[in-house]
Amino acid sequence: MAKKRLKIIPLGGLGEIGKNMMVLEFGEDIIVIDSGLMFPNEEMLGIDLVIPDISYLLENREKIRGIVITHAHEDHIGALPYVLPQINVPIYCTRLAKGLISGKLKERKALAQAKINVINPGGQFNLGRFKIEFYPVCHSIPDAVGLIIQTPVGTVIHSGDFKLDHTPVNGLPTDLSRLAQIGGQEVLLLLADSTYAELPGYTPSEKVVGEALDRIIAKAPGRVIITTFASLVSRVQQIINAAAHHHRRVFITGRSMSDTVKIATELGYLKIPDGVLARIDELRNMPHEKTVIITTGSQGEPTSGLVRIANRDHRQVNIVKGDTVVYSASPIPGNESLINRTIDSLFKQGADVYYGRIAQTHVHGHASQEELKLLLRLVKPRYFMPIHGEYRHLNLHARLAQSVGIPAENTFALEDGDILELSPKWGKVTGKVGTGNVYVDGLSVGDVGGIILRNRKMLSRDGIVVVIIAVNKQTGKLVGRPDIVSRGFVDINESKDMLEESRDLVAKILDHGRRHTAEWGFADSKVRDALNRFYYEHTKRRPMILPVMVKV
Amino acid sequence: MAKKRLKIIPLGGLGEIGKNMMVLEFGEDIIVIDSGLMFPNEEMLGIDLVIPDISYLLENREKIRGIVITHAHEDHIGALPYVLPQINVPIYCTRLAKGLISGKLKERKALAQAKINVINPGGQFNLGRFKIEFYPVCHSIPDAVGLIIQTPVGTVIHSGDFKLDHTPVNGLPTDLSRLAQIGGQEVLLLLADSTYAELPGYTPSEKVVGEALDRIIAKAPGRVIITTFASLVSRVQQIINAAAHHHRRVFITGRSMSDTVKIATELGYLKIPDGVLARIDELRNMPHEKTVIITTGSQGEPTSGLVRIANRDHRQVNIVKGDTVVYSASPIPGNESLINRTIDSLFKQGADVYYGRIAQTHVHGHASQEELKLLLRLVKPRYFMPIHGEYRHLNLHARLAQSVGIPAENTFALEDGDILELSPKWGKVTGKVGTGNVYVDGLSVGDVGGIILRNRKMLSRDGIVVVIIAVNKQTGKLVGRPDIVSRGFVDINESKDMLEESRDLVAKILDHGRRHTAEWGFADSKVRDALNRFYYEHTKRRPMILPVMVKV
Repeated sequence: MAKKRLKIIPLGGLGEIGKNMMVLEFGEDIIVIDSGLMFPNEEMLGIDLVIPDISYLLENREKIRGIVITHAHEDHIGALPYVLPQINVPIYCTRLAKGLISGKLKERKALAQAKINVINPGGQFNLGRFKIEFYPVCHSIPDAVGLIIQTPVGTVIHSGDFKLDHTPVNGLPTDLSRLAQIGGQEVLLLLADSTYAELPGYTPSEKVVGEALDRIIAKAPGRVIITTFASLVSRVQQIINAAAHHHRRVFITGRSMSDTVKIATELGYLKIPDGVLARIDELRNMPHEKTVIITTGSQGEPTSGLVRIANRDHRQVNIVKGDTVVYSASPIPGNESLINRTIDSLFKQGADVYYGRIAQTHVHGHASQEELKLLLRLVKPRYFMPIHGEYRHLNLHARLAQSVGIPAENTFALEDGDILELSPKWGKVTGKVGTGNVYVDGLSVGDVGGIILRNRKMLSRDGIVVVIIAVNKQTGKLVGRPDIVSRGFVDINESKDMLEESRDLVAKILDHGRRHTAEWGFADSKVRDALNRFYYEHTKRRPMILPVMVKV
Repeated sequence: MAKKRLKIIPLGGLGEIGKNMMVLEFGEDIIVIDSGLMFPNEEMLGIDLVIPDISYLLENREKIRGIVITHAHEDHIGALPYVLPQINVPIYCTRLAKGLISGKLKERKALAQAKINVINPGGQFNLGRFKIEFYPVCHSIPDAVGLIIQTPVGTVIHSGDFKLDHTPVNGLPTDLSRLAQIGGQEVLLLLADSTYAELPGYTPSEKVVGEALDRIIAKAPGRVIITTFASLVSRVQQIINAAAHHHRRVFITGRSMSDTVKIATELGYLKIPDGVLARIDELRNMPHEKTVIITTGSQGEPTSGLVRIANRDHRQVNIVKGDTVVYSASPIPGNESLINRTIDSLFKQGADVYYGRIAQTHVHGHASQEELKLLLRLVKPRYFMPIHGEYRHLNLHARLAQSVGIPAENTFALEDGDILELSPKWGKVTGKVGTGNVYVDGLSVGDVGGIILRNRKMLSRDGIVVVIIAVNKQTGKLVGRPDIVSRGFVDINESKDMLEESRDLVAKILDHGRRHTAEWGFADSKVRDALNRFYYEHTKRRPMILPVMVKV
């Protein structure tokens, strides 16, 4: 029998930003690292969320010892409500992550089944043949960790999402000493965050933003309205500190912001001095120069606090001249135009707006190139695998690894589903498991596939023409004149003549005494072809043509 | 009678990037500056192009003395093929602009009607009461100009699109001396490009890119494939120079690139040393280290050269290890994900890819903040109006103007359609003309409006359900069981039972012996409401419901 090897199988998160999920397998034991979702891109019309395909996990259900969570961002925990009902295994995570995951599961009514174990940063636990240690990392949410995993073939380090902030605002700095210590004892494999592998230099410390926010609040003549990610607790802390410093009261608006502030305060991650926080209904009587409002909407979400404010659709807040609005967040790719529209609208109403391109109101939470090289130098892994990123990020990160001495043949820029097998002296991609996007659309998970998306795409471009063809159920022959109804295609009044002409065309095609009932496939494709050609000639558009036969 | 005033009316280009068009009117004379198009944003489903609403011009057709073009980019000339057939007035532009406009009109078969007058940079001409002078500016296309317009109430300067490149690669630097001279004689109004008003400092010179390209080509082990904007002739020149410097042959692929290289070479804007250019069919036998390919696709356009290469769908070029690909362009907002996908795919196939975020392979063509302030200081206008940009750009530019001493009350950050009236001592917004987006979709201009776009949006999200209801034409009563056909909604096999149930629901609603023919509006809305509710309950989706009555 062949010697057992360690298998590393990414089920999501390579070649895309989001839906992070990684399998570590040795013999009869599997651990799963993270279970994230991805937000749909512009091709995924009507889709709410995207989660990983977990067929491999379902096939190997009895081997799974647990799901280990590095931190509580959606791209690392968002698939849990869909995954847990299918594979009910224990979860291992830090305290804040447990709080946020519980909230999420409760919302989806899946809490009862979940066993969530809290492990503090620095803590250790065993899952089958794997011995796992959480080490603290800095990221844009408190209580984030990386993993040191002892396996029978050697040590694996999983960086989680991280940066090296020497002056973090809350929590611990990334534990470089522990990494150096482990790096001195031979590390088999490093899996490291590639999200910002494009950026040269170092990512600035979270502290920098606090100073910028303090300056803006100091000189603002009226209200200061600040939006950020709800989970960016250190940012909320800095806003509260700056507000308190300038004797302003703080109002929280937007559901996810209120929820997170509540959980983070209860768990002790957010420290709010007495008398600073005020209820939103006290806002009316507060002098503008004594007011700071923290709200959701940093990504231009249509129902969020800031977007309602920008659209003059917020119950408590209407922009007036003298207001200052601060975007303390960066656009998630794809959201740029929604955000720009919101900024434009705020400017139009007289607000002074500060945002990333014109002021340092945000720093992100991922390591830049110099930090990535430092991690590689400290850990000195035999094998390296870039994770968390699109292909260009993975490739650039692999290039960085080679620049600090990892041989190209020991660097694995993989795709989702690739099986990387490792022994202490040997590493190779040996196969592939099925992976892909599973679409969540409304209540259903996985029923939307290629055909539905292609149809939505086609409908979105040039609309639809429905052709109603009545045939006699005995003779199979055409009855009356075919009817045509269109939506999203042309202006029905302006194009009346053309649409009428196309009805005649259908009548002409079908009116040859054929038994259309018997040969509906033939009639159907003849009508489609003829109308496709006719409409394209007249409009250069290609609506979906949907012939419907009615037997009468 | 009131004294005549100068009217400035932007018909497009304020609050958006694109479809630039500006009216200057005095008494019986109108001149139009630029006539551009805009590319559709993600909300404008299925739309090909957006052009300005020219109702104001049609109402004042007899006053229009000409259309003055600042440069030949699509956002300044792209609407001409649609505007000229409606208002056939002479065009005034530089030589390269004439070449490119003629090509565009020929394509749309509108050339015969057009009178295009060439004015060289530095040249002057009169249109009614306006005396116009072209002054050279640097921008990302040769032969770009700004306008010095003498009007009966004072001098107006229109910056065009510009930057202050002291070492331009072809053409003249922006004529600062002439601007200083005019600035010494009292300028009534400055209209200036706001596109990059967010950027601090100075925009780097085009020369910088030449050096970067030379370094990349020098060390590339194999072919170098470079994509840029076809109209960025100075970039093409620099690529050719660098290729020649390293004894490589240059191949051009992609239709718009080939066309522009041809026109620019004929007109003398592009200088290609003998023996450098090669035909694409010679490519097969050329050693890779002797090859540079210039291609289209810098915006990820699906049918462009580079995207075909990335998709392994190009007749002559397939990526092999050792290839270097260079993006010598920046993403136009909205195109980021298409471009990223192309870069990812090239990396995956083994190419080394250089692009804006990791190498200085592009500089843009617009003035940054320090250049904008310099222009304001040189011109010293009484009134200032930021143009070309979204609202945040216009507002930030207005803020810059105030920082160099223009009083806030003399600064006009307007919206499209606003009428700014000026006398030598007085400036005020006095009214508004109708403006907006006119959509070009296929052959038709302007027939697509809000309803069609809303329908396409709805169809794109959750598809459509067509309900075919047969009623007896005499009795008006339901015949048979209603039929249901859906597209883009649910998986038809998986959701068979639900769809069948919804047919029964429709039958139940309608089967009450009513004369549906007489009350179709009532039946129609009852079916819609019931199915909306039914489908939302079962799927949390909201497809378009389209009941169709067939009288039999």
